[in-house]
Amino acid sequence: MDKITIVKIGGKIINEEELLRDFLWQFAKIHGLKILVHGGGRSASQMLSSLGIEARMHNGRRITDSATLDVCVGQYAGRINKKIVSLLQTIDVDALGLSGADGGIIKAKKRPDEPFDYGFAGDIVRVKSNRILGLLKLGFVPVFCAITADQNGQLLNTNADTIAASLAVSLIGKAEVDLRFCFEFDGVLEDLESDRIIKTIKSQEFESLVDQSILNGGILPKVQNAIAAKKNGVGNVAICGSSNLVDLINATQIV
Amino acid sequence: MDKITIVKIGGKIINEEELLRDFLWQFAKIHGLKILVHGGGRSASQMLSSLGIEARMHNGRRITDSATLDVCVGQYAGRINKKIVSLLQTIDVDALGLSGADGGIIKAKKRPDEPFDYGFAGDIVRVKSNRILGLLKLGFVPVFCAITADQNGQLLNTNADTIAASLAVSLIGKAEVDLRFCFEFDGVLEDLESDRIIKTIKSQEFESLVDQSILNGGILPKVQNAIAAKKNGVGNVAICGSSNLVDLINATQIV
Repeated sequence: MDKITIVKIGGKIINEEELLRDFLWQFAKIHGLKILVHGGGRSASQMLSSLGIEARMHNGRRITDSATLDVCVGQYAGRINKKIVSLLQTIDVDALGLSGADGGIIKAKKRPDEPFDYGFAGDIVRVKSNRILGLLKLGFVPVFCAITADQNGQLLNTNADTIAASLAVSLIGKAEVDLRFCFEFDGVLEDLESDRIIKTIKSQEFESLVDQSILNGGILPKVQNAIAAKKNGVGNVAICGSSNLVDLINATQIV
Repeated sequence: MDKITIVKIGGKIINEEELLRDFLWQFAKIHGLKILVHGGGRSASQMLSSLGIEARMHNGRRITDSATLDVCVGQYAGRINKKIVSLLQTIDVDALGLSGADGGIIKAKKRPDEPFDYGFAGDIVRVKSNRILGLLKLGFVPVFCAITADQNGQLLNTNADTIAASLAVSLIGKAEVDLRFCFEFDGVLEDLESDRIIKTIKSQEFESLVDQSILNGGILPKVQNAIAAKKNGVGNVAICGSSNLVDLINATQIV
């Protein structure tokens, strides 16, 4: 079976040009078939602010009304996706930018209004993994933004960590799949004051790490998606930075 | 050889949801391999206005400074491209949205500063037609927006009529290629007061039609690109509307 490495980037790496270029340079070094999934960073909030539209959040997740969706699609599928694709093309990575709508590859449905209405937020229904394999076999490196569509053609905003994990799970049995969540640290920190990395997180330890407040904030959904992917049979799952993306030295392994 | 139909849409069809849906419904009826190329309509100017950025034009062409380019990429490669792709997916067209940067398919270079600096405007250098054929063979219907990139990864704004003509010319010898420029009329009008369509335009007649002021304004670059494609060996080249997109009855044929 082919080996496919799926890498997700977000946060500061998206926002800062130099960090992004460093990351892409490391991503280019990964051997074999690979897929990149990117979040939106601060770009949507900045554009909303420029347009005088209030960015609304609930429990750390964006509330996507119609005007916000338009901005997210423009920023994620447009500006950020094409910036990443065009930079990868200059370093011999044959990147092909995609949203979930393209090729109908990721079908989603609007998240239920209850208990809270997040607006045009999409939960993933299915992934057409054969279409992804077709593109990989042509030699393309798919670069996914976090926009999906439902069966009526309604575009939706979907969490990029979830997209990365769902792509990985959809390819199980068709390839050996590795999954790496890459952010601004080398791995999950024991606490924000130290620079000590948690070397391994076991699925069954997750709740106790949350209870002890060792895991909290923005890292929680990343670890949850990583654990879900591992439980579903994804091979090597790690949380890492740009500098250890290739060798995973000092990264956090999900076991 | 396979037959490939390339259709370009722009103007009012992009701006008005109902016209767009009518067009896409007709586009879906075209048999065989096909490619869609779309312009940006008024969306970039509207967004620039919302952001308080002045839209600047020279001889009917946009001057693309850095802020304007960001808006164009977001609108063309993001909002409009993904809207068209997601709508086509609902009517069984396996659309895959692309910019010229994706797969390095359309390489451009910045238009020279002299005699006038149009900013980040891109003139096409080459088209990787084999990558397009690869996507078509997988069953995808490529949907191109009018954004390209240069060899340094700089995104550029490129005329959509020119992209359609360049794609068509690049595929000659590898497929039978037809090219249709689709807009809000059934063909080129004899004059704007009548609804009489010019049935055929011969390449050698072009200059005399311009001299007689029969051709002017926005239709000029469309006819010029159509004639250039015809001269370069593209099979059937026509200027038409949505309602005669499939049968080309009462369309303007370039001969």
